Amino acid sequence: MDLSQLTNDDFKVKSLGERRVSSPIHLSKYEGDGVYDYVKDGERILYNPTVSSYESYISRGLTPISFEKAGPKEKIFFDPSKTKVGIVTCGGLCPGLNNVIRGLVMQLNYRYGVRRILGFKYGYEGFISSFGHPYVELTPDSVGNIHTLGGSILGSSRGDQDIREMVDSMEINNLNILFTIGGDGTQTGAHVIQEEVERRGLKIAMVGIPKTIDNDINFVNKTFGFETAFTIANEIIRNAHNEAKGAYNGIAIVKLMGRDSGFIAANAALSTQEANFVLIPEMPFSIHGEQGFLSALRKRLERSHHALIIVGEGAGQFLFDGGQLDKDLSGNKKFKDIGLYLKSVISEEFKKDGFAHTIKYIDPSYIIRSAQANANDSKFCTLLAQNAVHAAMAGYTDVLIGHWSENFTLLPIPAAVGTRKRINLESELWWNVLESTGQPTKMY
Amino acid sequence: MDLSQLTNDDFKVKSLGERRVSSPIHLSKYEGDGVYDYVKDGERILYNPTVSSYESYISRGLTPISFEKAGPKEKIFFDPSKTKVGIVTCGGLCPGLNNVIRGLVMQLNYRYGVRRILGFKYGYEGFISSFGHPYVELTPDSVGNIHTLGGSILGSSRGDQDIREMVDSMEINNLNILFTIGGDGTQTGAHVIQEEVERRGLKIAMVGIPKTIDNDINFVNKTFGFETAFTIANEIIRNAHNEAKGAYNGIAIVKLMGRDSGFIAANAALSTQEANFVLIPEMPFSIHGEQGFLSALRKRLERSHHALIIVGEGAGQFLFDGGQLDKDLSGNKKFKDIGLYLKSVISEEFKKDGFAHTIKYIDPSYIIRSAQANANDSKFCTLLAQNAVHAAMAGYTDVLIGHWSENFTLLPIPAAVGTRKRINLESELWWNVLESTGQPTKMY
Amino acid sequence: MDLSQLTNDDFKVKSLGERRVSSPIHLSKYEGDGVYDYVKDGERILYNPTVSSYESYISRGLTPISFEKAGPKEKIFFDPSKTKVGIVTCGGLCPGLNNVIRGLVMQLNYRYGVRRILGFKYGYEGFISSFGHPYVELTPDSVGNIHTLGGSILGSSRGDQDIREMVDSMEINNLNILFTIGGDGTQTGAHVIQEEVERRGLKIAMVGIPKTIDNDINFVNKTFGFETAFTIANEIIRNAHNEAKGAYNGIAIVKLMGRDSGFIAANAALSTQEANFVLIPEMPFSIHGEQGFLSALRKRLERSHHALIIVGEGAGQFLFDGGQLDKDLSGNKKFKDIGLYLKSVISEEFKKDGFAHTIKYIDPSYIIRSAQANANDSKFCTLLAQNAVHAAMAGYTDVLIGHWSENFTLLPIPAAVGTRKRINLESELWWNVLESTGQPTKMY
Amino acid sequence: MDLSQLTNDDFKVKSLGERRVSSPIHLSKYEGDGVYDYVKDGERILYNPTVSSYESYISRGLTPISFEKAGPKEKIFFDPSKTKVGIVTCGGLCPGLNNVIRGLVMQLNYRYGVRRILGFKYGYEGFISSFGHPYVELTPDSVGNIHTLGGSILGSSRGDQDIREMVDSMEINNLNILFTIGGDGTQTGAHVIQEEVERRGLKIAMVGIPKTIDNDINFVNKTFGFETAFTIANEIIRNAHNEAKGAYNGIAIVKLMGRDSGFIAANAALSTQEANFVLIPEMPFSIHGEQGFLSALRKRLERSHHALIIVGEGAGQFLFDGGQLDKDLSGNKKFKDIGLYLKSVISEEFKKDGFAHTIKYIDPSYIIRSAQANANDSKFCTLLAQNAVHAAMAGYTDVLIGHWSENFTLLPIPAAVGTRKRINLESELWWNVLESTGQPTKMY
Repeated sequence: MDLSQLTNDDFKVKSLGERRVSSPIHLSKYEGDGVYDYVKDGERILYNPTVSSYESYISRGLTPISFEKAGPKEKIFFDPSKTKVGIVTCGGLCPGLNNVIRGLVMQLNYRYGVRRILGFKYGYEGFISSFGHPYVELTPDSVGNIHTLGGSILGSSRGDQDIREMVDSMEINNLNILFTIGGDGTQTGAHVIQEEVERRGLKIAMVGIPKTIDNDINFVNKTFGFETAFTIANEIIRNAHNEAKGAYNGIAIVKLMGRDSGFIAANAALSTQEANFVLIPEMPFSIHGEQGFLSALRKRLERSHHALIIVGEGAGQFLFDGGQLDKDLSGNKKFKDIGLYLKSVISEEFKKDGFAHTIKYIDPSYIIRSAQANANDSKFCTLLAQNAVHAAMAGYTDVLIGHWSENFTLLPIPAAVGTRKRINLESELWWNVLESTGQPTKMY
Repeated sequence: MDLSQLTNDDFKVKSLGERRVSSPIHLSKYEGDGVYDYVKDGERILYNPTVSSYESYISRGLTPISFEKAGPKEKIFFDPSKTKVGIVTCGGLCPGLNNVIRGLVMQLNYRYGVRRILGFKYGYEGFISSFGHPYVELTPDSVGNIHTLGGSILGSSRGDQDIREMVDSMEINNLNILFTIGGDGTQTGAHVIQEEVERRGLKIAMVGIPKTIDNDINFVNKTFGFETAFTIANEIIRNAHNEAKGAYNGIAIVKLMGRDSGFIAANAALSTQEANFVLIPEMPFSIHGEQGFLSALRKRLERSHHALIIVGEGAGQFLFDGGQLDKDLSGNKKFKDIGLYLKSVISEEFKKDGFAHTIKYIDPSYIIRSAQANANDSKFCTLLAQNAVHAAMAGYTDVLIGHWSENFTLLPIPAAVGTRKRINLESELWWNVLESTGQPTKMY
Repeated sequence: MDLSQLTNDDFKVKSLGERRVSSPIHLSKYEGDGVYDYVKDGERILYNPTVSSYESYISRGLTPISFEKAGPKEKIFFDPSKTKVGIVTCGGLCPGLNNVIRGLVMQLNYRYGVRRILGFKYGYEGFISSFGHPYVELTPDSVGNIHTLGGSILGSSRGDQDIREMVDSMEINNLNILFTIGGDGTQTGAHVIQEEVERRGLKIAMVGIPKTIDNDINFVNKTFGFETAFTIANEIIRNAHNEAKGAYNGIAIVKLMGRDSGFIAANAALSTQEANFVLIPEMPFSIHGEQGFLSALRKRLERSHHALIIVGEGAGQFLFDGGQLDKDLSGNKKFKDIGLYLKSVISEEFKKDGFAHTIKYIDPSYIIRSAQANANDSKFCTLLAQNAVHAAMAGYTDVLIGHWSENFTLLPIPAAVGTRKRINLESELWWNVLESTGQPTKMY
Repeated sequence: MDLSQLTNDDFKVKSLGERRVSSPIHLSKYEGDGVYDYVKDGERILYNPTVSSYESYISRGLTPISFEKAGPKEKIFFDPSKTKVGIVTCGGLCPGLNNVIRGLVMQLNYRYGVRRILGFKYGYEGFISSFGHPYVELTPDSVGNIHTLGGSILGSSRGDQDIREMVDSMEINNLNILFTIGGDGTQTGAHVIQEEVERRGLKIAMVGIPKTIDNDINFVNKTFGFETAFTIANEIIRNAHNEAKGAYNGIAIVKLMGRDSGFIAANAALSTQEANFVLIPEMPFSIHGEQGFLSALRKRLERSHHALIIVGEGAGQFLFDGGQLDKDLSGNKKFKDIGLYLKSVISEEFKKDGFAHTIKYIDPSYIIRSAQANANDSKFCTLLAQNAVHAAMAGYTDVLIGHWSENFTLLPIPAAVGTRKRINLESELWWNVLESTGQPTKMY
């Protein structure tokens, strides 16, 4: 995202209208009385918390970019007793989906007194009658124990559906709020739904909870499931390390999630300290040649007789068909399997040279995506859900619940979607990875 | 193994000669004095512990088949102060390898006072000079913490090496004992080495610790790493179940180890109670047709909208090339990937019929093989190693350490290798799996 | 248990009467047809599977002691459509309780077609109206996911209740079968209930599933939850080891379950290989004196500067009040806390001598008892439950489901209860513990 | 900490002098060249990243409080080839100690080329000759695998030692840098050492890595081990929940770490969503009375028949001896066991009222403190260590490595120690806990 193209206006959150209903949550408006305070409108978190950045904006006569703080409001838009809510989960599985669903239901029910909550099944398909997926009623009882399970009790699907039919379905069901738990594509869809909702003059709040195991949503420092992902990867990498060391010139390749960004790969490498190579979508590299990957790998093997390679699934896609790939139902490029490709190209090349070696390839993607959220993600999911409910009840719409500098934030969907957060190869994070692996700074 | 071809003579264990050295382990020879007793020669464990089996043998004038009990002997063959020992790990990784190595070293060192222990690197390659793998000296210090690690600190390799060069190497290194930790191929090799050793008139004890994650060694009720394998599979199956339920007509396929036998698949199914189909090497099945697998799968999906399939890696190999497969260095058939095959044939067929579905394929093999042994396997490995040391110091050779009816046993290598233990489709175990999955008794 | 007092007659299982109903489970009566066979009456598993034991019985003109094999019968006693079943869990929690409950319900419902299954709440209290605990109806749906949870969905309580009122309650509820999941006290109670049932001429099958985390039921080689217990203890011991090594002359004491027997302590020591002392209920030891525990501990510390002690909860109770202890509701002696006692006596003594040290005391009992069953125990619980259902439907009563030489067995309750299985200090198991810890053979 | 007493001057970091040596780490000074940049002096992170806070400072003519950003510098103070480093771990164990030690050694050795690194044993005792603890040399080889272990390979101890003798020892050993890994007491000690160092005119950098499992260091948003602590607590709380539900009116009390602050208790409650009461050191409460804890507990039990209580170890200390407690060697108050107290007072009171109940008390402290760091903490420890090395090599002294708004920071020790970070009962965090437990806002 080219930040220089954005002004603070791009981070103004859309609202359905004046808030006239008193919140059923009793908080305070004053510091010092021992009771938590409502969050005031206009409390904003700086995008860049450094002194120099602030001063630079001011010196140029500009307003520093900042995000609206999320939280409970004194006055809300919807009357809880008349509010009907929908929840839908879209795209691939991600640890924490059930925690978020549970958090939404508990908060709506116990804090706001909202009793009519519908779970739409199998993603956006759940709004299209031809699929025939009945919705499920969600109650504190029915979601009470789901936070200990991976997966999504609502199921999921990929891809868009007809927007008008979806909004028809929302109208017929008298929805006032729709929570969309999904990634970039899902939230882009939510924005288009919101446009249709607005066109029809409906008062339906569209509130998104960003779900990307890859942690690549712009202006959000962490998304749920991401930490769980590299935590589980940790154990697997340790085992892969055993496989690599278990054979002479043993090579283990672990492919991790990360279509456009290498955050999981980088964090897994930093937390295990055992990888010798990390290949991520953001980095250029060549396979062959004096400076290429194979040459670096061979040097490593000659020195230490084993090597552990972590590769993000989106890495090196430029190696295939000139980067021209087909797309799936969600409009995502169908990636070629870079892990299998590396395995075969290493094997071919080393065999040609008579260089004895063994390769093991591990692709734990589905084991990770379907796992239960870890403790930190569980907490995070609950708080995320609570803030989503606050935002929706307050009548915010076309909005995502973000997180920045340890605060939950409200982000306009258009500002956050369309492009992805990526690892800056000039950043501390990537430098730390290079230091930890000892791999060449450039392999091309 | 056709038991009717075997008599008790096939279970006599070979010995290097008279035992004249007093054991440095001080035990008792009498019950009731509060001190554990040496195990007497000829203490034998019945193959079949039922009354009817015993009576049937006796009524036919036959001796019931039984196995020699392992354990410490009052007199041993080797003088500990002059004994030099080799340890080698061969074949694929298996949880517990390091526990066995540690157990051998600790027992040799602390109980028998044997100080010279060599670890040969990368399997049988470690005996062949052209590979240039130096051996490592193993001490209580160097192995003290390895039981908390997966893999093998000695590394491993597949395949045989030249027997004469191996025995040359054992002679040059003055080995008195060689512990071979490996599977069917490795132990077959150990038997051939023993023949060469005998031919040369050497006094070298060849003692094998059977390593098969598949638990398919004849006359051995459990091998180390097997329980860890289905324990880890458990967690993965649970996640796969989440993947299956996460999509409409979601199908998750988990491929588990088991080249010739389905013990891991069966035990994983019984411990999770979540699989809908278990396909194992022992069972015939057809893909197509009214009674075939695809038809059963479709019925299951129409009923419940998700299905979890566990498939042993050796299942359905008859579907490929008329069962004629190439072999690898260890002489094992190179199996085709039945999991990928199922995925593609399901997808093809269901697409043809316009039957909406989603398939996720999970192959956790290397994650399981390289894992740390669980608590029960850790204990088992230590005891296995201790009994291997007792057997070797007592001068037994051409022998495997087995386990039967809760006793450690001594098995002649030739009686145990060559064929594999398999699941009897008429057994309680398989019936339990059928009950647990609800799959048709016959799918062909 | 003094085995010489028992004959094979003590192991005959009581039956409610002739079995006239055809089993709804369709099995075979012949080997070789590919279908599992019904288990014939009189199939028996030898208590001692060694050749020498068998011959010794025969030579003395005696019948070797053996146990009836459990399993499905061709003819059963109860008509499934008219059968009503109760389930109750008693005593302390144990990993696997929910797996057993689930296994019973699934087997009754899906295999035998029994639909009316009542769960009695909070142990035997559930049968006594004054407590006011309503029963719960158990269905495949209501128990579908409980095997992933620790604890007992039925709750539990300690202690006996009035037998007549209990049987009244069983009569009023028209129970045909009662499954009692509990330990020695519970099963002793079940036997007394059975006597009252018989006195009244009722046809109610009393089938016990032995629950002892301590694994101390006679004639049963393993009970559910036991392996999970020492598996969890494993991790805790590893951490305790870190605590011990983290301070100069650091001492860590871990108290594990084991009121009358030290099986958990012994197996935990063998699986971790890190304990320096294991104190169990079966062993005599003195605290003070040249040969006492404190002296041995001090020597260990002076040599290595840290020590890890595992102590079974029933160890050293003779040190308190001359062994005269109060009893709780279940009639179990109220043990003094040997762990706290050791901590204070070590601290006192060493302070007196000016011997610098640090002590950490860890009592993980409730963490272990309430944990989820591990994979192997999960499988075991399911099979145990299935065999309990087979036994009950066949009309066996006053019976426990045992396990011996890898077979499930039927044990008359009176033969198994009253005394406990204990570690023989002359056995291989205890010798292995002594070897692993390096502690003095005798500390008194 | 009363922030209004502090100005930005309190956050100026002390330096040993001009930095004249070129860093051996080759980074860039310009953005956009694809290479990470040195961190410039004076890059500062705002204490409060909200727009309103910044404006409020400016409007009052004040400089907003900010922290110096940590990181690699172009010029450093120490010549790596002549630099000798000491590392010491003090106080109680905490997950991640070994990760930090490993990170320091790896960074010093591989990045800066510092080869002489001494580990001082058993905390500050390691500097005092009368204890006779020899130091250990730390190399990449000796620390290579320690990050997979809990505890501290250096051992630890509590309490201060004679400052002059410590500095003598540092002089004799020619230390240029001392890394002190420890809590408030340890860092207070480090500050006093620094004063003595300065008094003697020595050029020794004192760099502290704050270690508090309670996460209660001022101006540091998270400390290592804290997340691991509530992660492990999670599992234990789930089991405690099983214990509570396993008995009629079952009560489970889990005591968690937190001497002065309830961060672990609060985060454990938020991540499990299963606690009914959370008692923390920051909150007033009474035991008896209409509004007291016992009354609230009884109401909860009457409603739901089980209750789960999490209590921080420092909670309710005002109940004992008027809050007048003895102190230990580190000057920390010796707390009474609030968990045991609650257990006994509940039991007493409820027995008096004839209110049937069962109580289980769980104190997992030592299991948690000695555990291995989780994935996120492992990564955090490595980066913390790297930044500590950058700071030390640059000649900063009397400094702690902090973390704020996702940046590592440099904090003057005096600004951070002496008081502890505590939970504001008016904060979002505490309100979230109240919401999650449903406990009364005030229990007094």
